[in-house]
Amino acid sequence: MTDLFWPGDHLAGDLMSDEAFLAAMIAVERAWLGCLVDAGIAPADARADLSVADGDAEEIARRADVDGNPVSALVAILRDRSDPTAARWLHRGLTSQDVLDTALIICVRDVLIRVGVECAAQIRALADLAERHRGAPALARTLTQAALPATMGAKIARWLDGVLDAAEPLADLRMSLPVQVGGAVGTLAATTELAGSVDGALALGDALADELILAPTTPWHTTRSPVTRIGDALVTCCDAWGHIAADVATGSRPEVGELAEGSGGGSSTMPHKHNPVRSVLIRRAALTAGPFGATLHIASAASVDERSDGAWHAEWATLRALARRTVVAAAHMSDLVSGLRVDEARAAANLAAADGLLAEQRTMSELTGRTTLPDYTGAADRLVEATLDRARRFLEESS
Amino acid sequence: MTDLFWPGDHLAGDLMSDEAFLAAMIAVERAWLGCLVDAGIAPADARADLSVADGDAEEIARRADVDGNPVSALVAILRDRSDPTAARWLHRGLTSQDVLDTALIICVRDVLIRVGVECAAQIRALADLAERHRGAPALARTLTQAALPATMGAKIARWLDGVLDAAEPLADLRMSLPVQVGGAVGTLAATTELAGSVDGALALGDALADELILAPTTPWHTTRSPVTRIGDALVTCCDAWGHIAADVATGSRPEVGELAEGSGGGSSTMPHKHNPVRSVLIRRAALTAGPFGATLHIASAASVDERSDGAWHAEWATLRALARRTVVAAAHMSDLVSGLRVDEARAAANLAAADGLLAEQRTMSELTGRTTLPDYTGAADRLVEATLDRARRFLEESS
Amino acid sequence: MTDLFWPGDHLAGDLMSDEAFLAAMIAVERAWLGCLVDAGIAPADARADLSVADGDAEEIARRADVDGNPVSALVAILRDRSDPTAARWLHRGLTSQDVLDTALIICVRDVLIRVGVECAAQIRALADLAERHRGAPALARTLTQAALPATMGAKIARWLDGVLDAAEPLADLRMSLPVQVGGAVGTLAATTELAGSVDGALALGDALADELILAPTTPWHTTRSPVTRIGDALVTCCDAWGHIAADVATGSRPEVGELAEGSGGGSSTMPHKHNPVRSVLIRRAALTAGPFGATLHIASAASVDERSDGAWHAEWATLRALARRTVVAAAHMSDLVSGLRVDEARAAANLAAADGLLAEQRTMSELTGRTTLPDYTGAADRLVEATLDRARRFLEESS
Amino acid sequence: MTDLFWPGDHLAGDLMSDEAFLAAMIAVERAWLGCLVDAGIAPADARADLSVADGDAEEIARRADVDGNPVSALVAILRDRSDPTAARWLHRGLTSQDVLDTALIICVRDVLIRVGVECAAQIRALADLAERHRGAPALARTLTQAALPATMGAKIARWLDGVLDAAEPLADLRMSLPVQVGGAVGTLAATTELAGSVDGALALGDALADELILAPTTPWHTTRSPVTRIGDALVTCCDAWGHIAADVATGSRPEVGELAEGSGGGSSTMPHKHNPVRSVLIRRAALTAGPFGATLHIASAASVDERSDGAWHAEWATLRALARRTVVAAAHMSDLVSGLRVDEARAAANLAAADGLLAEQRTMSELTGRTTLPDYTGAADRLVEATLDRARRFLEESS
Repeated sequence: MTDLFWPGDHLAGDLMSDEAFLAAMIAVERAWLGCLVDAGIAPADARADLSVADGDAEEIARRADVDGNPVSALVAILRDRSDPTAARWLHRGLTSQDVLDTALIICVRDVLIRVGVECAAQIRALADLAERHRGAPALARTLTQAALPATMGAKIARWLDGVLDAAEPLADLRMSLPVQVGGAVGTLAATTELAGSVDGALALGDALADELILAPTTPWHTTRSPVTRIGDALVTCCDAWGHIAADVATGSRPEVGELAEGSGGGSSTMPHKHNPVRSVLIRRAALTAGPFGATLHIASAASVDERSDGAWHAEWATLRALARRTVVAAAHMSDLVSGLRVDEARAAANLAAADGLLAEQRTMSELTGRTTLPDYTGAADRLVEATLDRARRFLEESS
Repeated sequence: MTDLFWPGDHLAGDLMSDEAFLAAMIAVERAWLGCLVDAGIAPADARADLSVADGDAEEIARRADVDGNPVSALVAILRDRSDPTAARWLHRGLTSQDVLDTALIICVRDVLIRVGVECAAQIRALADLAERHRGAPALARTLTQAALPATMGAKIARWLDGVLDAAEPLADLRMSLPVQVGGAVGTLAATTELAGSVDGALALGDALADELILAPTTPWHTTRSPVTRIGDALVTCCDAWGHIAADVATGSRPEVGELAEGSGGGSSTMPHKHNPVRSVLIRRAALTAGPFGATLHIASAASVDERSDGAWHAEWATLRALARRTVVAAAHMSDLVSGLRVDEARAAANLAAADGLLAEQRTMSELTGRTTLPDYTGAADRLVEATLDRARRFLEESS
Repeated sequence: MTDLFWPGDHLAGDLMSDEAFLAAMIAVERAWLGCLVDAGIAPADARADLSVADGDAEEIARRADVDGNPVSALVAILRDRSDPTAARWLHRGLTSQDVLDTALIICVRDVLIRVGVECAAQIRALADLAERHRGAPALARTLTQAALPATMGAKIARWLDGVLDAAEPLADLRMSLPVQVGGAVGTLAATTELAGSVDGALALGDALADELILAPTTPWHTTRSPVTRIGDALVTCCDAWGHIAADVATGSRPEVGELAEGSGGGSSTMPHKHNPVRSVLIRRAALTAGPFGATLHIASAASVDERSDGAWHAEWATLRALARRTVVAAAHMSDLVSGLRVDEARAAANLAAADGLLAEQRTMSELTGRTTLPDYTGAADRLVEATLDRARRFLEESS
Repeated sequence: MTDLFWPGDHLAGDLMSDEAFLAAMIAVERAWLGCLVDAGIAPADARADLSVADGDAEEIARRADVDGNPVSALVAILRDRSDPTAARWLHRGLTSQDVLDTALIICVRDVLIRVGVECAAQIRALADLAERHRGAPALARTLTQAALPATMGAKIARWLDGVLDAAEPLADLRMSLPVQVGGAVGTLAATTELAGSVDGALALGDALADELILAPTTPWHTTRSPVTRIGDALVTCCDAWGHIAADVATGSRPEVGELAEGSGGGSSTMPHKHNPVRSVLIRRAALTAGPFGATLHIASAASVDERSDGAWHAEWATLRALARRTVVAAAHMSDLVSGLRVDEARAAANLAAADGLLAEQRTMSELTGRTTLPDYTGAADRLVEATLDRARRFLEESS
């Protein structure tokens, strides 16, 4: 899977692809059928290894335009392709939204796992970088201007804080991803009818959650915080990477020259160029992530009735785009930090070239009446240590 | 081309697809090669029917991740597949951004043509609907509540105003779509070298615009109003349709019952349902369009240097998604208005059931001291006429 | 404080007002001065009750335009208004961003407290409503159409789930709000110089956090997840309320008639109207919240250097607008749910008027070979119970 | 009027302030009353110089929370403060939305006039700058890296193109701003009753437009393209300025040193700093403008019925914030370009320091077999001339 409009898209592989989405919907139907059999509601021979044929995905997508979502067509095709008992019991008790929402969540789980792996790799690489260049003198800049002396370690530790802030909630999020089982209007009416009792229906919902390793919950057909929570988490990752990429792009300017990507991109006409392509493509993702998050919130806020008249449908492709692009940006960032080159000499030279950096220190010294300390990087090193400790704890806990 | 996450996507056919984008990029290279030959710069046998092979698109997309855009890889492959003279002259004078921006504009033109056709169809259908139900008594509602008597014609005429507001600027926009020719940094330096003179270089730029039937202009590498103008126009279309879809979804509620889509969607479990699926899918598009427009503006505002370090790259997929979804929504809206059923009896009954609608009229009559007019729909009919006149003029001018 | 452009703004009182913001900045300066004295760095008579005079706020705002933020002017004015020793020690060790960020966080804490109180009130009111109308038969609707029988309790329980989803993270968020102390570039250089040691500097930072009852943390000058986390939490509240308001606005339509606000708004010309004004104004807030959240993320993603060149500045008014509007919407929602009237008779009548609702039940019954259960609301009641339990736990834990 | 959260806000003066909005609403009521008298509908002594007292604005804002908009309360207060005949005829025929929408448009007109004036000043200043530094050698950069030789004139001309792109549509927009006159549901029912005829009602609407110097049009109560068109135009201005500010911020980096703001901002702790504060504050505005535009589109797309249940209300404060911030950014940009200092020596030095810039030229020369041209800035100068011509035409036409 590639995308000419989004270079790097193939790095997200099959995550949130049409095929993965279809497979996840089929997995939900299969698991539910299994639950019906396990509960003694459907006969043992209703259990089936459901599958579709080549070309079915396209047919399903076309018919989804008639029904408004792909599940009706999928169910019809699965029934066609199953033996009569399975066909008879397939999807009974579920509604389209149960299947689609749960399938989305399954796809999102794979995304979160991948993003988690990339974050861990970045945290390791950034911790290494921070250690390696920990005390390297560097110029700190505010509002683009030379401000005070600092260290490369301090800059990298702040990047690391950002990635940790984004990565820490991902594990919790992944463990609390909810199943959707409510039936047509969130009452489990059909399932209750099938099970013959409310207890039986609720048990079936729990069984499906167990089977799919998702969290059981009350139906969230039009209570969409599970979706916005995912969106916000992914956008927060892109923010953290966007910050790093902005610093790397700035540090890669030839006039600054403190940072360079391990492998830069070429130019179609200018062979001398060494472009910070990873940074550029990450910045691209960071610019577009926030509005996707907003779309998910707008859709959530527009929820109505027991299934929304458009707001629900707005989520699917939005989540897909946000998720794939987050994965691509994650891969780019892992690549960037693993190969990043820090030019300590240039950093030192830029620092040396800046005038007047110690005026603040002299002001402080006048206040205290003591001679100035030997350097003016303050607690930079200890703050690096604090962040490195945090990184170590994160890596231990997540391993 | 189908998309399980965006039912109806296939209605946009090949517009803004990877294939169309690639074909447009090749068309730009071919046209430029032709211009170089026509100007006597390249030899006659440099003219070539450029093309790529199956699988090249995927290869180009993968290599775009290295370079940051697909043009370098495309040029390399085109050179491989061309005879030596064409290969030697191909792309000379252009930069990646020239090819990519101009190709995007070519793809957008096809989108604007299609959207224009759909708008014209909608305008005809809405004008017909407004005529047909022009005087049908209907309840006007404000803040969800019964407000005053009006007519179905008045409601439909307002929808028509919205579509006309969106459609009228499209023709101008389509005629002013700009070519991008600036070379690596917008100075036409390489082209000037090839042409041997500034006049020659400028003439080549004009020739390319002519050949591609685009407007010549100064380079807009980091002056992105041409892109945001397109985005705003597409979003404005989606807004107009979103408004109609919201009214149709509301009017389709069984308790209201005044409107019904010609063909409603079914349910996977509830055969009695007649869902307003076109409205639902249009509302979906309308919810997501605005944030895409914002992304294009944010990218434009972040422009820097002579090629932006991420902002430019953020535009491509954003424009693609916005454009395809606008086309899909256009097709849905054409379908919706051509099949829309108005239940005049239910409209009249809802009007009759509302209490106290004439209090305002009595207040006015007390003020004037005259007896009330026979009905209280005021200038509704004349305002319908004004909009129908506008629709007629639009259709005449655009035919 | 009122706002003609945002009716209800006065319900947010002084929260995030210019006065509150100024007071919070002064509180930070005062607390820091106290810490310097407590640590034996500044003399005891440096401790001061800082304050500004009437009109200073406007002067500070004007000078903020010159400096880019209001802190320099505030410090200058505070020095003018303090005795010499306080003036001499004031702000030493801090940078503008320390003061501004920490003051924003203090203001946000007040907002979170207020939103938390409103959420608790809503949860109580919604739990009461769900109990009161728990078994009341009602029509469940999907895609605007009649779907299946359900209960009023089920609908209200879903609203309650949404408010709980939004409210639960607020307590954690409030307890983890971070202080910002880093000095000019996040190294605590000036503070280290003042304290004479890194340990002393770090202790001062912790002391300030203690004094202001905020969480100590590494500097987050350009690592802005603390800000986006707040934004996302506030937007999520607005989403939950937007959903309820959409349902109430729909249920208030005269043709539906199942819900009515306790006190509706009048019309300037139509005395018969009873507008769902709370719902309307909440929907307004819900429509605008998501894009504010996106702005905060976009700003976070654009972070660069040790203080950003515009991204930081974009946060302040964005957070203020989002926070105040969230508070106003919270107050509106508390009012709405405390006064909401449910017309059980109309709900039952709408249910009775819907055709074919039991087709699904019959299909299930044919599958099982059993006679149908006496009603078809499935597990609705048990799911209401689950949500009420969750609400009870929330109220216990948060009391 | 100042705003601690948005330094520079006072530069927008009274534009779109509560006072200006209130005055505009009163102006609409006064003009309408005059139209009723002129048409012989109301007696001559109904004509009145309407006004409110101090404190009324706050009272109106509070009561707006009850009614959902400020007009009912305003009308009640105006009636209290008027003699009986005026009180009797005041507001007759209008609805709240007529008054509010028209008042917003009046306020927007003042904003557009101011922005137009600032744009003209910027265009003059940029044209001067482009002339002054027209041939100054400068390094062109793409993706942050040294690309090719160019001129300062070329860079400034591209900025000028952006401002012209934004400014050109403003005049048309200002001339086509529409009045809103539709009465409660857009049918002019009450006005028709008052006038005794449809012709009379339509004439009154036209008279109001004439009196307020606005364009007559069919009612646009829920057809909101007039609002989104304004929003898009303002955002496009901010985009153009954001681009310039990004370049100035980059060029102001001490390592680059090619550009400097005339008056930079200081630092609360670092006296050596010369911050590009105008650029920083403009970038701030540019980051936040796009999402405001999106909010207006989202509101437009959510329009429903004859007055929307929240979408309309979402527009007012959004438009106010976007408009004021655009004015502030306009003033900042005028200031920036009038004082911008270009360091031609640093620009030349940066160019000289870049390696390998002429590789492309050599490639071209090998192709043509001719010796290279004396410089490699191509058509840069002619493209500057084209933009300067465009600027001259704009200034002539708009003077």
